[in-house]
Amino acid sequence: MNELRRDPVSGRWTIVLMGKKFRLEDLRNLFQPITKQAVESCPFCENNEARTPSEIYALRPPGSRPNSPNWEIRVIPDYYPILQTHGDIDNRAAGIYDVLNGIGAHEILIEHPSHNVNLPEFSAAHTVDVLKTMQMRIIALKKDPRFRYVLIHKNYGEATGNTLRHAYSQILATPITPRRIRDELLNAKEYFSYKERCVFCDIVDEETLRQKRIVLEDQNFIAFEPFASGRSFETWIMPRRHETFFETNENLQSLAEMLIATMKKIKTLLDDPSYIITLHNGPNISVSVKRRYWKTIRKDYHWHFEIVPRLRSRSSFELGSGIPINPVAPEKAAQILREEEWE
Amino acid sequence: MNELRRDPVSGRWTIVLMGKKFRLEDLRNLFQPITKQAVESCPFCENNEARTPSEIYALRPPGSRPNSPNWEIRVIPDYYPILQTHGDIDNRAAGIYDVLNGIGAHEILIEHPSHNVNLPEFSAAHTVDVLKTMQMRIIALKKDPRFRYVLIHKNYGEATGNTLRHAYSQILATPITPRRIRDELLNAKEYFSYKERCVFCDIVDEETLRQKRIVLEDQNFIAFEPFASGRSFETWIMPRRHETFFETNENLQSLAEMLIATMKKIKTLLDDPSYIITLHNGPNISVSVKRRYWKTIRKDYHWHFEIVPRLRSRSSFELGSGIPINPVAPEKAAQILREEEWE
Repeated sequence: MNELRRDPVSGRWTIVLMGKKFRLEDLRNLFQPITKQAVESCPFCENNEARTPSEIYALRPPGSRPNSPNWEIRVIPDYYPILQTHGDIDNRAAGIYDVLNGIGAHEILIEHPSHNVNLPEFSAAHTVDVLKTMQMRIIALKKDPRFRYVLIHKNYGEATGNTLRHAYSQILATPITPRRIRDELLNAKEYFSYKERCVFCDIVDEETLRQKRIVLEDQNFIAFEPFASGRSFETWIMPRRHETFFETNENLQSLAEMLIATMKKIKTLLDDPSYIITLHNGPNISVSVKRRYWKTIRKDYHWHFEIVPRLRSRSSFELGSGIPINPVAPEKAAQILREEEWE
Repeated sequence: MNELRRDPVSGRWTIVLMGKKFRLEDLRNLFQPITKQAVESCPFCENNEARTPSEIYALRPPGSRPNSPNWEIRVIPDYYPILQTHGDIDNRAAGIYDVLNGIGAHEILIEHPSHNVNLPEFSAAHTVDVLKTMQMRIIALKKDPRFRYVLIHKNYGEATGNTLRHAYSQILATPITPRRIRDELLNAKEYFSYKERCVFCDIVDEETLRQKRIVLEDQNFIAFEPFASGRSFETWIMPRRHETFFETNENLQSLAEMLIATMKKIKTLLDDPSYIITLHNGPNISVSVKRRYWKTIRKDYHWHFEIVPRLRSRSSFELGSGIPINPVAPEKAAQILREEEWE
């Protein structure tokens, strides 16, 4: 019989199809294929620096000029920022409603100078530098008391609109906490107030004990398929030791290796699908208005990465009901990724 | 400057682009076009009754045989039910997680015997019958104490997988409350405990007073664009008078007329886009375990329909951040729908 499973982190229920059989081809066909883009048209490539806004930061040889070639990583402001950096938030009422000015930061982290190299092909040392750059930008943006949250996500595979296939992440600082993260923060707080334990630490223990949803593990991190995952082959990478903020992590070598190995497995087994990676991180607790609220956050929240291969489409059932249907049980997905073998 | 707006019902923030200009063609191009399907292949059409599971209910002349032609409306079980009707829920732990058996009801409400007739073309009398059928099925399914929620949604325009273009709605009874609805119930409860007023009644008053987001109104209902709508041209139809449960409503003639008029406007102005209509209704309060929890629900919750034209795609920003971006300010969308004129 199919199962209804509840995710203890988000509180969301998912229908998991328990008996569904797939051929590898059908499985791969679930996911959105990537769209390629020619190198000459890409402003993120080395030597095209003049086609981007002026860089905020770059990892480049000492003494080399900003916005010149010969860099490893660049951070630039977004071309068409949806939120603007300058101005006051001006929290106000509009009748019975709440409205803020669209203030925020929107940056692009260009992860590599070459066009056709992405996470599975990065060296561990380069990936460590990408992760360090993320930490640096989070620390810098959290100094701004207008920003409650810094969100980092990486979108791979789509070249529609203003997105490009060159390896990059988006960094977004917002005066509000995005609802998806807020739900997680609130559920984690509730779990802690009830059990005096971090829900994520409990998940690490449970998954390590059972082993059946683990994809990869070492002494610092686990990569696993969440129990109530609403999306097939969703994979989380989580530190074993309790830690609220990604920007304080010092095991980046271990994280980089696990991230690369996981993305290699997903690329090979699912035939290079589109995916989104989102960093779920603690909020900006220096924002004074919220300090009281976040007083237990160092105990109750635990950062992690969520990797989600993008599905081609959702059924009308899912769209209408808002209840996801996962056709591949997480135990099965973990087994496939772990063994790198189909059936 | 763009605005960040908070929806008082879901608690979700949306970025509303305030200065964006569209040509009518660009605007229409935001939405997913419909896919057509030939009549001969449709099992929902009159005379094809033998190709569907046996009907649960039909509006047909007294004395006519079940599953024969000459009906107005039919309700059948879904072909491939994702949730099964028979069995126990068996709420249990799986390690630290919660799991239920996939128990539920999944029904199809075939809204009309003819293939190419849908809401904008229905007569008011026929639409009243469709709405009455929904009420009847909600009442019947809420008698089953295993079901906490009965969800009704209508998906128009897509013919992928097992969905068909023939006018139909899906009726789904679940042993859990879908998260989207649960968030709304909890926020409505919180608002009430704070203000001693129903948040939806406050919205009706605010929108009636301001008029700028109203599309249609009469003495019983308003159709309007929600203030913090995350999706362009999202329209809600809500009763003016406080009412928790759709199944008790007695102004179906008025509702039917407003529903038809709204869908006609959307079809004409947005060039027949795909859409989803979802009934947001009070839960099954006869489920005894929840009775204490829902003791204020008759005061704090207020049923309504949400009509959402389906967008062609979401940006990588929205997918990664979970913060919707609405390029058409709700005031602008309301003006366009109200005046049935572009600029």
